[in-house]
Amino acid sequence: MPFTQEEVETQLKKCEGWQLQEGRWIVRKYTFSSFMKGIAFVDEVAAISEAFKHYPFITIDYKTVTLRLTSQEEGGITAVDIKEAHQYNEAFEKMRSGE
Amino acid sequence: MPFTQEEVETQLKKCEGWQLQEGRWIVRKYTFSSFMKGIAFVDEVAAISEAFKHYPFITIDYKTVTLRLTSQEEGGITAVDIKEAHQYNEAFEKMRSGE
Repeated sequence: MPFTQEEVETQLKKCEGWQLQEGRWIVRKYTFSSFMKGIAFVDEVAAISEAFKHYPFITIDYKTVTLRLTSQEEGGITAVDIKEAHQYNEAFEKMRSGE
Repeated sequence: MPFTQEEVETQLKKCEGWQLQEGRWIVRKYTFSSFMKGIAFVDEVAAISEAFKHYPFITIDYKTVTLRLTSQEEGGITAVDIKEAHQYNEAFEKMRSGE
């Protein structure tokens, strides 16, 4: 069962930078100081999503990486999407604190 | 000076899989046997584009990686875009022959 819109919004209050889009995606844009740092982040994202076997839609537009998550087979946002979003944020914070 | 539409189309005849889109982008979708192989390809693409200091717009949708190139500052497609497209194709062929 996917979360209701209200449940998603409550979850996202504790998940920095993520927003609900079109009622069925959660989305965050991450900006980096260089293109190659954005690519290093995508490598981290890939390792996390491979562990979950649940893959975000990723776009790389120069120094900006956008991640979109949904649970298509469930028709909405589930706990897995929220859990992954938190892990991407942790990977981002770790990279940022290492700069 | 960007290429004319006819010049782009002539160039793309020799550049497998790339197509002109909306008159100002050249685009190719690459499909892989796994998500992580697509990510390995994106790492190759990143190294190539960093060498050119000219970056494609990249999307990763599970096993499909889409690259879009343009020379925004020139208002169209230039020789650099075509050269990069060839190098991405070479990286793709190299990965495929290594499987």
